[in-house]
Order: sequence, then C-alpha cells, then structure tokens
Amino acid sequence: MKTQPKPGWKSKIHEIIYEADTPAGKFFDVALLIVIAISIILVMLESVSDLNLKFYWHFYIAEWIITIIFTIEYILRVIAIKKPKNYIFSFYGIVDLLSTLPTYLAFIFGGHNLLFAVRALRLLRVFRILKVTRYIGESNRLLLALRNSRPKIIVFLFAVLIICVIMGTVMHLVEGEKGGFDNIPLSIYWAIVTLTTVGFGDIHPVTPLGRFIASFIMIVGYGIIAVPTGIVTSEITRSEKDKIPKNTQACPHCNETKHLDDAEFCHNCGKSLHEH
Amino acid sequence: MKTQPKPGWKSKIHEIIYEADTPAGKFFDVALLIVIAISIILVMLESVSDLNLKFYWHFYIAEWIITIIFTIEYILRVIAIKKPKNYIFSFYGIVDLLSTLPTYLAFIFGGHNLLFAVRALRLLRVFRILKVTRYIGESNRLLLALRNSRPKIIVFLFAVLIICVIMGTVMHLVEGEKGGFDNIPLSIYWAIVTLTTVGFGDIHPVTPLGRFIASFIMIVGYGIIAVPTGIVTSEITRSEKDKIPKNTQACPHCNETKHLDDAEFCHNCGKSLHEH
Amino acid sequence: MKTQPKPGWKSKIHEIIYEADTPAGKFFDVALLIVIAISIILVMLESVSDLNLKFYWHFYIAEWIITIIFTIEYILRVIAIKKPKNYIFSFYGIVDLLSTLPTYLAFIFGGHNLLFAVRALRLLRVFRILKVTRYIGESNRLLLALRNSRPKIIVFLFAVLIICVIMGTVMHLVEGEKGGFDNIPLSIYWAIVTLTTVGFGDIHPVTPLGRFIASFIMIVGYGIIAVPTGIVTSEITRSEKDKIPKNTQACPHCNETKHLDDAEFCHNCGKSLHEH
Amino acid sequence: MKTQPKPGWKSKIHEIIYEADTPAGKFFDVALLIVIAISIILVMLESVSDLNLKFYWHFYIAEWIITIIFTIEYILRVIAIKKPKNYIFSFYGIVDLLSTLPTYLAFIFGGHNLLFAVRALRLLRVFRILKVTRYIGESNRLLLALRNSRPKIIVFLFAVLIICVIMGTVMHLVEGEKGGFDNIPLSIYWAIVTLTTVGFGDIHPVTPLGRFIASFIMIVGYGIIAVPTGIVTSEITRSEKDKIPKNTQACPHCNETKHLDDAEFCHNCGKSLHEH
Repeated sequence: MKTQPKPGWKSKIHEIIYEADTPAGKFFDVALLIVIAISIILVMLESVSDLNLKFYWHFYIAEWIITIIFTIEYILRVIAIKKPKNYIFSFYGIVDLLSTLPTYLAFIFGGHNLLFAVRALRLLRVFRILKVTRYIGESNRLLLALRNSRPKIIVFLFAVLIICVIMGTVMHLVEGEKGGFDNIPLSIYWAIVTLTTVGFGDIHPVTPLGRFIASFIMIVGYGIIAVPTGIVTSEITRSEKDKIPKNTQACPHCNETKHLDDAEFCHNCGKSLHEH
Repeated sequence: MKTQPKPGWKSKIHEIIYEADTPAGKFFDVALLIVIAISIILVMLESVSDLNLKFYWHFYIAEWIITIIFTIEYILRVIAIKKPKNYIFSFYGIVDLLSTLPTYLAFIFGGHNLLFAVRALRLLRVFRILKVTRYIGESNRLLLALRNSRPKIIVFLFAVLIICVIMGTVMHLVEGEKGGFDNIPLSIYWAIVTLTTVGFGDIHPVTPLGRFIASFIMIVGYGIIAVPTGIVTSEITRSEKDKIPKNTQACPHCNETKHLDDAEFCHNCGKSLHEH
Repeated sequence: MKTQPKPGWKSKIHEIIYEADTPAGKFFDVALLIVIAISIILVMLESVSDLNLKFYWHFYIAEWIITIIFTIEYILRVIAIKKPKNYIFSFYGIVDLLSTLPTYLAFIFGGHNLLFAVRALRLLRVFRILKVTRYIGESNRLLLALRNSRPKIIVFLFAVLIICVIMGTVMHLVEGEKGGFDNIPLSIYWAIVTLTTVGFGDIHPVTPLGRFIASFIMIVGYGIIAVPTGIVTSEITRSEKDKIPKNTQACPHCNETKHLDDAEFCHNCGKSLHEH
Repeated sequence: MKTQPKPGWKSKIHEIIYEADTPAGKFFDVALLIVIAISIILVMLESVSDLNLKFYWHFYIAEWIITIIFTIEYILRVIAIKKPKNYIFSFYGIVDLLSTLPTYLAFIFGGHNLLFAVRALRLLRVFRILKVTRYIGESNRLLLALRNSRPKIIVFLFAVLIICVIMGTVMHLVEGEKGGFDNIPLSIYWAIVTLTTVGFGDIHPVTPLGRFIASFIMIVGYGIIAVPTGIVTSEITRSEKDKIPKNTQACPHCNETKHLDDAEFCHNCGKSLHEH
C-alpha cells in the first residue's frame, strides 16, 4: 500500500539481511548462524543440571548477550522491509520474536523455569541454517527430488501406518498383558518400533505365537524398506538432468524469493526488484 | 440369473455406494472412511483399561451409533447390487458383516469381553481406506511396481528365512541356554530379529563364539538389505513410463472393477456397464 | 574311466533324481523337498524340551522313517550316477550322508545327545530347496546380479569391518569397563551391532564422550548403508536386459549342469548328454 | 632441494616399499599387511584381561618382535625416499612412528599401562590395507562414487542432525526425567539412536505423548533412509561408465601417486618418474 521511495540505508540493510549476493550479506548470514549455533548449545548445556548449578552466572550473562543481539536483529529486520507485516506474521518472524521475548518476560515476572521451555523454541531458528544450504546446488537438487517424491512417500507411510494398526491390534489380542502389550495404542507403538527396525526392546513378545507374528512383521518391514528407497532413487536419477536456479535475491516489496537470474520485476507482486 | 430390469433408485444407490465417479459417490466414500476411522479409534481407546473405566457409557453409546450406521450401510450394499451373493460372500462382505454382528450378539448373550476380540475385526475395514488411494495415480504406480517385483522379493525373503533357520540352529548349538537360546525355534526368532536389524535385545549372545557368529549374521543382514531395494528401485524406474488406468466404475451385474475408460460392457460378465 | 553302456533303468533313475525335465523328475524333487522340510521341523521341535518330553516316542519313530527314506535316496543317488565318486565326495554327497549316519550311530553306540548336534547338519539339505528356485527365472537374475556385485560388496564389508575395529578400540579406551566395553574384541562386537543399526542394547555407552562417539558411528552407519544398496541396484538394473538360461539337464558322466538348450555333449567332460 | 643422483639400491628399495608394480613390491605389501594384522590382533587379545594374565610373556615377546620389524621398516622408508620430510611429516609417517615408539618408551620409563592406549594407535596402520584395495578396480569405482556424492550426503546428514536436535529437545520437554531424558544432549543422543533405527533401548519413552512423538521420529527415520541410498545409487549407476586408472607408481622425488599409465614425469613436481 505504501509507495513512497525508501531511503538508501534501508535498502542497503535489506540487501545485507535478506539477501546473500553481496560480501556483506554473506558475512551477515554466517555471523548470524554462529550466534544461533551458540544460543542452541547454551540451551542444551543449561538443561544439564550439573552444569547449570556450576556455571549459573556464566549462562545468565551469555543468555542476555544473545537476547540483545537477537533483539537488534529483529528490529533491523522489521525496519528494513517495506511491508513489515509480511515479516512479522511469517513463520520466521514469529520464531524470531519468540527467541527474544522469554528472557525479557522471565526478567520482569521471574518465572524462569516455565519460560525455559518457551526459550527452547529458539531451536527453530536452526532452520535458518538450512536456508544457507541454498548456496550448495546439491541441496536444491535433493529438496526437489524429495518434493517430487512426496506424494508417493506419503501414500507409502500411510500404508505402513495401517499395517502397524492392524499388527498392533493382533499382537494385543495374542500377547495380552504378558509381554507388555497392555492396550492397543501401546501395541501399535510397538508395531511401529518393530516395523521400522528400531527395536528398543522395552516391549517384546514372550509367547511362541506372538514371536511368530513378530517375525512376520520384521520380515515385512525388512522387505518394504525398499519402497521409499526405490521412489527417491528413481526421482534423484531423473533430477540429475534438470537445471537448478541459484538466485538468492528477495523482493524488497513482498519478500518473495526464487527469482530468475535475469529477472527485473518480482514474479509475485510485479514491482521492481532493484528499486527500493 | 435374474434378468428383470432393476428400478432406478437401486441403480442410483449402486452408483453412490460402489463407484466414485459422481460427487455423491465421492462424498459417500469420504464419509464412510471417517466413520470407519472413528470406529477404529474407539476400539483402540476402549482397550486402554483406565479410559474404559472412566468413559464406559460414552464408549457404549458411540459403539451403538456406529453399529447402526454400519448396519444401514450393509443393508444398502446388499440391496443395491444385482447379485447380492457376489457381495455377501466376498472378503469385504464378510468383514462388513463381522463389523456389526458382535455388538448385537453381545447385547443378546451378554458376553461382552469375548466379543471384543471379534469386534477388533472391524479394523479390517480400514482396507477400504487403501481403496481410496486409487484416486492418487501415484499409489497405482507403487502397487504396480510392488506387484511386478513380488516374485523376486518372495524368492529373496525365502532365502532370508533359510539363512535364519540355519543361523538359528547354529546359535542354539553354540550358545545353548546361557544367552537365552533355549531351543531352535526361539533361536530362529532371534536370528530374524538380528538379520532384519531390529535387535530387541531380550535375547543376545554372551559367549565369544556366539558373538562372533552374531557379528557375521549382522554384517550379512546389513549387506543383503540392498537386494529388495535394488529390485523395487529398478521396477519403479521402469514403471515411471507406463500409463495407469484411473477408471473407478464397477459393473452393476458382477461388481467387477478396473474397466477401460471407454468400456461399454463389463470385461468379466459381458453385460452393459450402464444399464441396470 | 568306465565306458561300458549303463543299463536303461539306471539312466532313468538318473533322469528322475538328478534332472527336472520330466514330470517324474519334478515330482521327485517336490516330494524330496517336503520330506526335507518335515525332517527340519522335527529337529526344531525336538529341541524344545517340553515337547521332547511329551512326544518322545512320536519323534523317535518319525526320526527313523525319515532316516530310512534318506538312506534309500542316498543309495539310489550312488547307483544312478556313472562315477559315484563325483557325487559321494561332493558337498551335497557329504551332507546327504551326514543326514542319515547319526541316527544309525546313535542306535549302535547310544550317544543320543551328542549326535543331536550332528543331525542338525541335516539342515544343510535345505539348500536343495534353493536349487528348486532355478525354475523361477527371477531367482537366476537375482543370483547373477549378486554374483556380479560380489567383489564390490566384499570391498565394502571389508571397509565396514575396519571402521568397526577402529571404533571398537576407541570406545574401549573411552568407556573402559563402565559401560560394559570390557575388552577390545567385545567393543568391536558392539561397534558392529551399532553400525549395522541392530542395536541390542546389552552393551551401550554411559559417558558423555562415549555417547558422542556412538552418535557418530550411528550416523556413519546410517549414511553408508546406501553403498551396498547402490551397488546391487545398479547391477539389477543392468541385468534386467540379459537372457537367463533355464536348462536343468545334468551330464550323466560328470554330473555337470548348466548346459545350453541345444547342447548335445557335456561342456565339461565332452561326453554325450543323452547316451548312458 | 638435494639434486645429487641417489645410489641404485635406494631406488630399488623405493620401488619395493612405495610401489607395487614389481613382484618384490607386491610381496612386500602383502607381508607388511600380515604383520600389521598380527600386531592388531595382539593389541586386541592383550585387552582381554584373562588372556593377558595367562599369556603375559608370549604377548611381551611378540610385542617386541613386531616393534623391531616396524622399526626396520620405518628406517628403510626414511632412507629410500629422496626428501624424507615428505614421509616423516605425512599422516602415515607419523602413524608409523607412533606404532614403534610406545614400546621403547614403556621399556625405558616403565609406564606400561598408560602407553597401551598410545600403542592402540597402531590400529591406524590398518588403513594401509585399504590402500591395497587399489589393485581391485571395483574399490576405485566405489570410492569415486562416494567422493562424488559426498557433498549431497553431508547436506543430508546435516539435515538429519538438525532434526535430531529439535526432536531431542521436544522429547526432553515432553518426557522429562521419567523415561531417562534427563537433559537435552542426552535426548539428542536418544533421537540419533532412534532416527538411525539402531534403538539400544537404554533410554525409551514411557508417556503416551512421548511414545507418539517417538513413533513419528521412527517413521521419519524409516522414510528418509532412502535419501543417501538414492544419492549413492544414482552416482554408482553413472560411474559404471567411467574408466578408472590402475597405475600404482609413486614419484621418487615427491612421493605423489596416481600417475597415468604412460606418464614419464611426475604430474606434481615435474621430475622424472624413472630416474632416481
């Protein structure tokens, strides 16, 4: 809706934060990833009670430094984009906000323990790391192959689930509470553990008939693991030939990505990709 | 044998219940699947003793509602088809009957506990869900690839079984009753658990020689898991080129499906597909 | 060495026992497989101590019936072939002898328990069942693909073993006797259990460093399971095009198999395939 | 830097030790591998405390024999090469030195127990065995396919790790300390154990919600195991066509390998491959 030309520095920040074509943009991405990685490692270590008792104040200070960095980044992201709503209400916008808020709330209201769980949401920022893999052409090819084989894999996993439901029910009726198959949902959980060849061993059949059926489930699981593999392999073999776009530009108006290399206008909102 | 023309409403019910070309037919299929899914979830939850004690009457009433819906559906199915025997004595016909009978029998004779097992047969109705995947062309392709590679996979699984029989016997002789390899069938069960890389851990070798042989079995299992995968992959790659029929019409005379798109007569009984 | 023409009945027995082109030959094969299957099931059930106490005499009598059948078969095999040494000292010849001898020895010397282990060798006769799969063209194709990819798979499994040796030693040094990694061979056993994704759980790391290294091993195992699959798949895809010979004739002189369909003379010893 | 012509016997030793074109060179390689294999088996057996007590002196003497053989080999390697620094500071040079030193140090300073760990480094010499696989063209093809698919597999394993980090955190929040998910690093370890379908069973969910999430992780792990397989398979299928060099010559000046069959000069340092 707003059509006034934005000042040059906003356009520059947009280029640095949202794109990765310039050296500054690449540096920002890498630096941000390092901070995210550190923040995640901190959340991990804080969860180890021994370490938390010993280094409580170290964690506390590091926590605040990271929160301030994330706050500055969040404000910059809101300023740099033309339509802030597009960022604020996007998936990443909400995750970025939830990465900073809990520390402030814990400071004001004091409920440190409860807010730890919310702060763990910061982990979702890790997906930004995946975004970097865009630079590696290989990962685009992989994602494409996976996306193309998604309908087939969903059908397959659905069939696996139905097999598990039926087998779980059968095992509940056969084994009863002797081997730990107390109820049908638990037996279905066991069937999934077995069919996927994980096999924890916390629940396992003890009657001869139960073991016979379990053997059958295992051999089926061993046989059909071939299906998703076959699907993805044939997809990857085919995708080897296709060309993959590597453009990282983002529209300064609507934030849409995946533009062609020689695109002058955004394919989503039709505005210029270069004019801010 | 009967050749009198059926009234129009029967032909319409047939189209709705047995086919999925019309909006009403598709709606019926989806609605039925939802009821089946609810009935299955009910059977699952009822098996959890805590929930069964708490919500006994809720389950009881829900049980009766579903039974009545299934009864109506069963009667409609019998009426709508020209030769009811074709449906009644088919796999689905028997499963559909067994989905309703137990509740009535439990009401009349009171043996609630015993009939729970029979009611679990209702789970088999879940296969109707698989039938819906017909609409997704992908699943047809998958099924075709699986069907084509079936002879090879059976030969492979047969070889796996023979390896397990031999290895199980060897482990029984080597480990004896120390590691839980009490008898040959149990040892074969362990060999299947190991070769398929499930590995529950309820039985495991304890002697050095037993562990050496177990290592051998595991490495063999790790090596030959490649075989079914190779089979299915080469099958899927090949099937990518083939055309898949999507026709869902069912003959009103003999209930045969899989007709060509422009078929006028049933390829099974030779009667018209449109005239009822 | 002997060149006198054999009488007709020997030639006929040879055709029935060693080949499978005639109805009688096929019937003999199937009947033999059923007897072998029964004898294997008997050995299995006998190992279950409960059943052995209950049905001791049933097992004893069945045991003798099978032994006598196998003895007759063994004598016929020796008579029917021109150079009995070729059969007697072949792998199957020795297995066939060991399938009958233990019962006689147990009868004469009384050492029933000890000879049970020897009788379990009878299991090796099960390989004859695999021979039947020759009739299924699919299994030939599979075997061919496996044989062609054998050098690659051996190289791969060798590399896996070396990884397991190194990882096992590392885990022994890191975990010591805390997690059950008492010595290097045991730790290597654990590394094989883990890398092949079997995961019994009888031995598992308990120190943070040990768990970190274990995570690494697991991810490596998950990543390289792709290698044998890739090898076999590319082999099977290639072998799809090749023609597979289905001839089951065996030379009456040297017992060589795999003759071409229009072969008149044995490609091994040069004698006629038809003249006995 | 040194350019004086080396005497003939050095050039001969170089050919025997570093190359494998001559019968003597091949014999040296095989003999060395056998000694390495024996030394590794010795380290393994020594770690079994029962055996170490019983055969202490046997191990002690064997230890010294192997150390002396390795010392002679090390000295020959240093002498035979023109620029010893190239060998001494290479990976193999350091490993070779560390394979002999500990025994001498233990003899001088007496710290036998401590140096056992260092001697286990001798295991790294096992990589020389892998070098032998160069003779098998297949292994070159495999390595090439693996090297080509490395970027894709790294991206994939990276994605797997991120899934494990997120899932581990979720399980820690859901299960808490009930099922053993004491802290986030431990929960991530569990997520890796589960996603890779290893499933030790030392930690496993006990709450219904935890089991539901675990089922989800297992099915995801079962579905995405297809990805590395697909990558490697398409790589191997492609590599089948390529030609693989089998030349084993090593440059006497800079020790570079992988020369073309008709190469006269080293492609790395430009000096003659034949003149020493």
